[in-house]
Amino acid sequence: MTETAKLLIHGASGRMGQALLRLCAEGGNCTVVGAVSRKVGQRVIDGVPQFASNELAGVPAFDAAVDFSLAEAFDPILALCAERGAALVSGTTGLSEAQRAAIAEASARIPVLWAANFSLGVAVLSELVERAAAALPGWDCDIVEAHHAGKKDAPSGTALALGEAAGQGGALARYASLRAGDIVGEHLIQFAGIGERIELVHRATNRDIFARGALHAAGRLSGRAPGVYRLRDLL
Amino acid sequence: MTETAKLLIHGASGRMGQALLRLCAEGGNCTVVGAVSRKVGQRVIDGVPQFASNELAGVPAFDAAVDFSLAEAFDPILALCAERGAALVSGTTGLSEAQRAAIAEASARIPVLWAANFSLGVAVLSELVERAAAALPGWDCDIVEAHHAGKKDAPSGTALALGEAAGQGGALARYASLRAGDIVGEHLIQFAGIGERIELVHRATNRDIFARGALHAAGRLSGRAPGVYRLRDLL
Amino acid sequence: MTETAKLLIHGASGRMGQALLRLCAEGGNCTVVGAVSRKVGQRVIDGVPQFASNELAGVPAFDAAVDFSLAEAFDPILALCAERGAALVSGTTGLSEAQRAAIAEASARIPVLWAANFSLGVAVLSELVERAAAALPGWDCDIVEAHHAGKKDAPSGTALALGEAAGQGGALARYASLRAGDIVGEHLIQFAGIGERIELVHRATNRDIFARGALHAAGRLSGRAPGVYRLRDLL
Amino acid sequence: MTETAKLLIHGASGRMGQALLRLCAEGGNCTVVGAVSRKVGQRVIDGVPQFASNELAGVPAFDAAVDFSLAEAFDPILALCAERGAALVSGTTGLSEAQRAAIAEASARIPVLWAANFSLGVAVLSELVERAAAALPGWDCDIVEAHHAGKKDAPSGTALALGEAAGQGGALARYASLRAGDIVGEHLIQFAGIGERIELVHRATNRDIFARGALHAAGRLSGRAPGVYRLRDLL
Repeated sequence: MTETAKLLIHGASGRMGQALLRLCAEGGNCTVVGAVSRKVGQRVIDGVPQFASNELAGVPAFDAAVDFSLAEAFDPILALCAERGAALVSGTTGLSEAQRAAIAEASARIPVLWAANFSLGVAVLSELVERAAAALPGWDCDIVEAHHAGKKDAPSGTALALGEAAGQGGALARYASLRAGDIVGEHLIQFAGIGERIELVHRATNRDIFARGALHAAGRLSGRAPGVYRLRDLL
Repeated sequence: MTETAKLLIHGASGRMGQALLRLCAEGGNCTVVGAVSRKVGQRVIDGVPQFASNELAGVPAFDAAVDFSLAEAFDPILALCAERGAALVSGTTGLSEAQRAAIAEASARIPVLWAANFSLGVAVLSELVERAAAALPGWDCDIVEAHHAGKKDAPSGTALALGEAAGQGGALARYASLRAGDIVGEHLIQFAGIGERIELVHRATNRDIFARGALHAAGRLSGRAPGVYRLRDLL
Repeated sequence: MTETAKLLIHGASGRMGQALLRLCAEGGNCTVVGAVSRKVGQRVIDGVPQFASNELAGVPAFDAAVDFSLAEAFDPILALCAERGAALVSGTTGLSEAQRAAIAEASARIPVLWAANFSLGVAVLSELVERAAAALPGWDCDIVEAHHAGKKDAPSGTALALGEAAGQGGALARYASLRAGDIVGEHLIQFAGIGERIELVHRATNRDIFARGALHAAGRLSGRAPGVYRLRDLL
Repeated sequence: MTETAKLLIHGASGRMGQALLRLCAEGGNCTVVGAVSRKVGQRVIDGVPQFASNELAGVPAFDAAVDFSLAEAFDPILALCAERGAALVSGTTGLSEAQRAAIAEASARIPVLWAANFSLGVAVLSELVERAAAALPGWDCDIVEAHHAGKKDAPSGTALALGEAAGQGGALARYASLRAGDIVGEHLIQFAGIGERIELVHRATNRDIFARGALHAAGRLSGRAPGVYRLRDLL
């Protein structure tokens, strides 16, 4: 079902929502059947039906919703997907414990994927980090991440997720963060032994990779069995 | 059987042979029951019985032979291991096709491991490279290796082995080689997509890691079922 | 005169020409008094008078011309600058020996800058490379450059220029080139001694830096004494 | 006077002292006329006259003293050099303000060099960092250093010295420190602008470079005019 998935873009007026719509319009293997945003009409996309947040009930049939909205807008889209039997791909941040529990509950009926980072490269890296950590017991593990000067939180959510992957392999990661220039996002995981070292690096140079990764995930998630998925399960 | 393997060091007067003997003497989990070199008496190691190449028949019982000798000295040590039912770990280079066939044949009776690089880090990296290549179809794969100015061959055997690992994952690697200073050995495998990149790097800073890796492998290989093993099978 | 230089954009319909116009329109410290391209009217820029290549005589007064055109269009803009006593900043490639001689001749009357790369970072790096090469006699010097898969020439013009800078410091650089993904441009210069190494790296992540650098240079060059300048003279 | 400088090694039984003696014995361009340590006789060096700390008055004529001792042993060697009119190269750490003042005072009569790091590469890097900082106003400056897991202080003295060099160029450096494996010492200085970055890296892989740098400095300092020198002044 990858090729022709019918998508609903939720959070269409945000930076990610706009990128999702633009990439689909530029010829991705996706069909957008609706764009949901708080206010309709702000940014018109040719040929894509628009819906306000309170008009969710009226959206046409879709295979997967792609949600980059706000925590307060999350419950309705999860409920809609569960009701329609559609997949949900979400990168909305700041979800509460209750909302995470609701995801788990909904996953009994629909396939759901939530991720901090939708870059395919980071998904692959995460798997490599876990494997390296497991294969190199006793080696020191350090994660250095660099982002643009405007990024407030540190370490980045992605660095923490990579540290978690290292932890699943048995390594305890330490973190260092750089905030400089307009760096889109770089993550280095270093494993240091005696007389040798391994460095695993991801460099993002274009924010479109996150939108592209979310669309890719939506295509792969459509029609799958219910459950909670990780991005790396869909590679 | 890792802890107390009885080892025979074959090629004991070479750089690797000397390193193996020194590391064992410094307290590795190994017992050296004999050191074989072309000429006996050159470099005496306290408490280790020495044998000339033509005295192989007289060496005491051992669990594994560790061989870093010359191609022309390889056949007798392989034959001895097969005869004694002992494991063989070899890093001897320049083996002929006939000798490689002899390894395969002997592996019906004993466990055998031949590797171009005995660093544990490179063994792990090799696995990561294969996995990354498989997970990132369509990404460009480049390998850059750097070694000391005196190294003649390029690309390094390790780079070629990493390229082979990439190939098993479906990627076609291109190579670049630097020969500079006294670099022990560095390998970078870059996977480049659109808007993002992954770099996997191994840096060796001390040649002892190769001897340490060979001893580790010998310990793990001792007592295994007959067959041909790769270093990464023993991690 | 940096702040308010009046610029003539020559080669206005090309990728660099468009970037120059866009950056000025977005609020750079520059005033575009005219945009020259082969055909007028293709890409209209609000408020910028446009001229065809054969209408050069009619362009208004300007402090500096910024030229990213084609070799066959270079002679008229050089002649115009010399005639008007205006500065010329050019990144046009493929100039003939005769054209380079013409630059030298014109530099008796006007300030002229031609460069392969207008990134300020590369200009600074070039100076660092020359200094490092001079301070590290006997160290091996290697240059590794990486660009997008579509780039045909190798090594890059920038790598060659950096190698020339190393040469002025007394080092003989060797080159390696990677062509992968959509890499905007990266250059690594490694100096390797015994027991230590220095690596100097430039990473370009956005092509706008080249246009920004050219505008910066034009501002700095305006009103200077006649002569041939390098980008690093204007930092 | 570089080639044949007569050296006095002060602190001869320490790790650096031993390395200095070994390198000279292996054929450096230096003649050791005496080795001073707290206790004589511990580690005999063939053909090098040994002196206890309290026998300084009896050492033969020398061009330069190379001092890697302890703060409490520093005053006598400084006094001896001043008295003899010999150069002093010192890497002794933990000097007091009073001792630093004494260096300044002695520099009216003899050439003196104190440094936190005697690697030539770091000396060159320090100069490059200052130059880059001055040429890239407004770029963010970050220093990442990595050392072996046993190193207690952070950031390293070398990182702080590099940050000072950046400061002399007008940049305010931030620091991150990694402690991992057996890393001899690595320093990365990153300058990040908009759309581009410069990274300056030094990698030490062998501690001998520090001893070699001190010997080099001693050779260069011998016979110079009185004054306080920096390592980079002697390149």
